Amino acid sequence: MLAGWEDIRAEVLRRIRAHDWRPGDTIPTEEALALEFGVARATVNRALRELAEEGVLERRRKAGTRVALHPVRRATLDIPLTRLEIEGRGQAYSYRLLSEEMASPPPAVAARLGLPQGAQMLHLVCLHLADDRPAVLEDRWLNPETLKVQPDFHLVSANEWLLANVPYTTGDISLSAANATADEARLLDLPPGSALFIIDRTTWDRDHPVTCVRLAHVPGFRMRTTV
Amino acid sequence: MLAGWEDIRAEVLRRIRAHDWRPGDTIPTEEALALEFGVARATVNRALRELAEEGVLERRRKAGTRVALHPVRRATLDIPLTRLEIEGRGQAYSYRLLSEEMASPPPAVAARLGLPQGAQMLHLVCLHLADDRPAVLEDRWLNPETLKVQPDFHLVSANEWLLANVPYTTGDISLSAANATADEARLLDLPPGSALFIIDRTTWDRDHPVTCVRLAHVPGFRMRTTV
Repeated sequence: MLAGWEDIRAEVLRRIRAHDWRPGDTIPTEEALALEFGVARATVNRALRELAEEGVLERRRKAGTRVALHPVRRATLDIPLTRLEIEGRGQAYSYRLLSEEMASPPPAVAARLGLPQGAQMLHLVCLHLADDRPAVLEDRWLNPETLKVQPDFHLVSANEWLLANVPYTTGDISLSAANATADEARLLDLPPGSALFIIDRTTWDRDHPVTCVRLAHVPGFRMRTTV
Repeated sequence: MLAGWEDIRAEVLRRIRAHDWRPGDTIPTEEALALEFGVARATVNRALRELAEEGVLERRRKAGTRVALHPVRRATLDIPLTRLEIEGRGQAYSYRLLSEEMASPPPAVAARLGLPQGAQMLHLVCLHLADDRPAVLEDRWLNPETLKVQPDFHLVSANEWLLANVPYTTGDISLSAANATADEARLLDLPPGSALFIIDRTTWDRDHPVTCVRLAHVPGFRMRTTV
């Protein structure tokens, strides 16, 4: 018996894998599938929606649902707090503020945050350590209007403070690789030129720019996901 | 008027951002929210489910739904076909098979695919080019049992062939950074030690191991997403 939407999803996927329905084919309507499987139309709808979100099906208004020609596989990536990521690996977390000053961000940072050039922002550089060894170098520009109170960033990382005080922001993330500069290598205790895994994040609270941060991870760091 | 689940989602998010509901707070039941908003309980359910999938809420069987204490932000990552990724940047795509041989994979590859050590697999090394410049070096081990016909991998990349013939597989993905070895640097026309963005994928078709591939991307490559 096909009961839940997960069963319908599995059966649709089975037919696609078996090439009963081939890439580009329009599949039967929700009504027809509901009738065939003996379930509510809402159940079929849920299953097809999930498969569309995964990139397996393409739903086209009026033209029906078809098997994706070039499925873009969609993976879900967890972006944890750096402390929780390190503790999750069973290592002891510590944190060190390296510098804190008001300054004008580079034009690219101002542009990404939609701020005028020359606007003053709080520039924080800090180090996240795992078992007392450098793990992540954080270079952050913070919109001072975000700070209703001025936290002591020697005691709490901006990462933690923002999450507690300006949570549920929206933002862009970009992942890349870069050779460590001489400064980065020194701060991270690595040979110059080491390959760093870079996470760049730009964050807004509704329409207000909050922060622009570059997290440089030492070799060995991995982000994992499944498709 | 609060009509659709997107409106309910936005209102719940607004209350969380306004700290009406704080991290760790249990929020009202679906019934109470449906009554307050004047919508069906299924509409509230859909909105809360989305927010739970995004990591904003935690749904606990019997204990109700609460605002996540440490929200793990979840981002969606598109994993496109290398050709489409290059063409999507407006560059001309080309492909070159560098080597093809039957061999025993390194123990780590055999282990990841769940194959006995010493099992013979097809080893393919190929280059994906953008505007005639090396963009991605692909090092792939392929389970020969996957190949019912033997394609000519000079003409079609394994990437494309698998998508057309063994689509909708499941798999693990790992993202990391690595310094180019001397060989990699030579094949990618880069200085030795250049920081490469590495995507490792291991793929199964239901329970059958299909392939294990390492895609090394030249500097400048970025994966982008939003939260």
